[in-house]
This record gives sequence, C-alpha cells and structure tokens, in this order.
Amino acid sequence: MRKKEILVLEDLLGSNKKIAADIRYKLTQRGILTINLMSSPGAGKTTLLERIADYLKPDYKMAVIEGDIETERDAERIRAKGILAWQIITGGACHLEAKMIGKVFPEITPDLDFLFIENVGNLVCPASYDLGENIRCVLLSVPEGDDKPKKYPKAFTTSDCLILTKADLLPIMPFDKERAQKEALEINPKLRVFETSALQDIGIKELVEFFISIRQNFLHKNA
Amino acid sequence: MRKKEILVLEDLLGSNKKIAADIRYKLTQRGILTINLMSSPGAGKTTLLERIADYLKPDYKMAVIEGDIETERDAERIRAKGILAWQIITGGACHLEAKMIGKVFPEITPDLDFLFIENVGNLVCPASYDLGENIRCVLLSVPEGDDKPKKYPKAFTTSDCLILTKADLLPIMPFDKERAQKEALEINPKLRVFETSALQDIGIKELVEFFISIRQNFLHKNA
Repeated sequence: MRKKEILVLEDLLGSNKKIAADIRYKLTQRGILTINLMSSPGAGKTTLLERIADYLKPDYKMAVIEGDIETERDAERIRAKGILAWQIITGGACHLEAKMIGKVFPEITPDLDFLFIENVGNLVCPASYDLGENIRCVLLSVPEGDDKPKKYPKAFTTSDCLILTKADLLPIMPFDKERAQKEALEINPKLRVFETSALQDIGIKELVEFFISIRQNFLHKNA
Repeated sequence: MRKKEILVLEDLLGSNKKIAADIRYKLTQRGILTINLMSSPGAGKTTLLERIADYLKPDYKMAVIEGDIETERDAERIRAKGILAWQIITGGACHLEAKMIGKVFPEITPDLDFLFIENVGNLVCPASYDLGENIRCVLLSVPEGDDKPKKYPKAFTTSDCLILTKADLLPIMPFDKERAQKEALEINPKLRVFETSALQDIGIKELVEFFISIRQNFLHKNA
C-alpha cells in the first residue's frame, strides 16, 4: 500500500514539474515575471497584493491568479483595485498545482509584466508544487510567532524571499524578529528578507523594487 | 492516473477510520476524553494548552500529543508546565493520522482524564483525518481575519467547537467577530463558540468547564 502510494505521488509530482517548466518557459519568453506567494491562512497575502498593485499600476501591467479552497472573495478584492484576477477554486485541495495554472494560461495576455499567484493558505503542502514561477515568496506574519521557519521548513527552504508581514505589530506582540530571521537563514542562507506592513505601507516599496529589478535582469538575459 | 490516485486515497482514509474508531473506543472505555485541536500555524494551540493546563492540573490528569512537521519545541513547552507530552514529528506530512496516534497509544496510561492532540498547524488537511478524538476543536485567531470559515470550510464543518483565539487583539485589528461567528454557524450550526485570549486569560475557564462537562456526560454513559 505504502509503496503504491509513493509511486503515485511521485508520478503526480513528476508530471507537475513538466507542466510547470513549460509554463515558466512560455511566460518568461513573453517577459512576464511570475511570483508565487505562499503562507499560512491570514498571513496577509491578499492585502500585500492590494498594496503592491498601488506601486506597480502606474508603470506596469500586473495580474493575479488566486487560489482558494472555496469562495471568490480574494479575486473580488483584487478586481476592486482595477487589477485583472482569475480565481481558482480547488474545491478541497490544499494547494495549487501547475495544471491548474495551465487551465488559466490561455487567458494570460502577453502584454503583462508581472503575474502573481496567491497560493492556498497553507504553510505546508504548497511548498511541494512548482507552479512555473520565477520567484517564490513565503510570508510569515508577526502574530504567527517567530518559531515557524524550523517547524515548517520546506516553505522556507524552497523560497527565494521571506516577507515578514504585519510588522506594525512588532512592538506589541511577543515576536523575536532576529530569531525568526536567523532560523530562516540557517535553513536557507539565500533567502532575501523583507520586513513589511501592508496596512502601514512599510517595506512595500523595497519589495516592489526587488521584483522590478529581477524582471529587468531576465529581460536583459532574454534579449 | 487520477482514478488510481483516488482509489489509493480512499483506501488510506478507510484504514484511518478503522484505526481511529479503535482508539476512540479504547480511550473512552478508560474514561479519557480526547480532544483534537486544529488550526493554522501560529493560531495559538500550544499557548492555549499551557493555559488549559493551569486550570485542569489541580483536579485532573491531562497529557498532550504534539504533532509537528519538525522540531520537539511544542512538547518541550508542555513538559515545562509539568504535563506529560509526546512529540510526533511527521517529517514533512501535513497532518496527523490515526496510525501515528496508535504508535503512542501503548504509552497512554489509564489514569489520564484528558488527552489533548495538537495537530500540525494547517487549516486544511487535518480536517480529513479522524484521530479517535471525542471532540474536535478548530481555533481561529483574530489576526487571521474574519473571512476564514467559508474559505476553509472543512475544518469548521467537521468540528464541535470554534475557539476564537487572541481575542485581546479585537480592539486593534480589523476583525468582525459577528461575521466570523455567523459564517461559521451558517456552515455548521452545531458549533459551540468560545472567545478566548490565552495571554490575558479570557474565556479559558468556560472552555475548560465545557470539556469537564462533556467528560462527565460520557463517564455517566459508560457507567
């Protein structure tokens, strides 16, 4: 039983990798930087995207793929900012997979500059699924606690960025910022760390500038 | 592929149910009330257990099974309160399963009154796995947001209690308590709702009294 189960899962992940590689190749060719946001439920992914939109909208075209188990709520919030958003409802599945992105793919127009994918709120399962992104970001919110990187390591070891969110709560909550950052860097020394508060507009500009610079790098490489 | 996958998962869940039923029967026979706590990472499960221990310890014997992907941190916190705790490290798995509880089972002494199981921090996957508990509680912390019950329905529809945690943050965070409660009750009208703050010791007494009353009920039934 166990062996069969592992074989099935390996096959699913193998096929996911192929679809993801294909999506990444095609989006990169079009000059679209794709960013996969992962976190626990309620760490602030949608609010972060709303604020990122404020910074990118004047000069760039962005769109968002929203992954949720149920409801179209997050896509509606993004659309209310005048941003194109597709809602993927997984109907119970705990993560997005590349084939779900593949279904939205035909609707992605080549004039986009940035495509954000907001994964299902889950600090565990989404880490195992490449969605064809160029950059993977894990969000950790201050109220979740500073002990999470080593308790949920895969989300941190597979990411390029750690975005500390709700940093405006640092003065009033028991959260040791140095500990969280140190433990995250111990398991993934390449992590870029950003400290943000979407509500107080802290650190969002630096994060957006980072995304813009990464896109410029790969446009240069593609040229 | 898809069909095979579903068959395998069904078999796993079927076997989980049987093991869970066996665990529940044996623990109930011994007069042990078993409570499964589920939530997102960082919703405050361990801190809630620390505070529950303060209330139960004078008159009852409790123990805790801690489920985590990595680290023994949570069990160490519970042991520091003078409470027996077993740590299950899932090594990547996103939820506890009944067979993992089964491995700890031989060490559970019959003199216990309450056995708490702290599931892996994940608002999705643990909801599908019966662990042999008598009562299932879902925790929702104020910083996570009031929109979660309908976005992550299964954790709420399969639970007996909704424990709102970090309620001391209600005055300073955008969280509509009535909305969260209304939407949770819409999808599961039988939910018992408790509003708590472990740090400020709000609502813990009522929650503990509820657990004690449920245990008295089933002792009465077993008699």
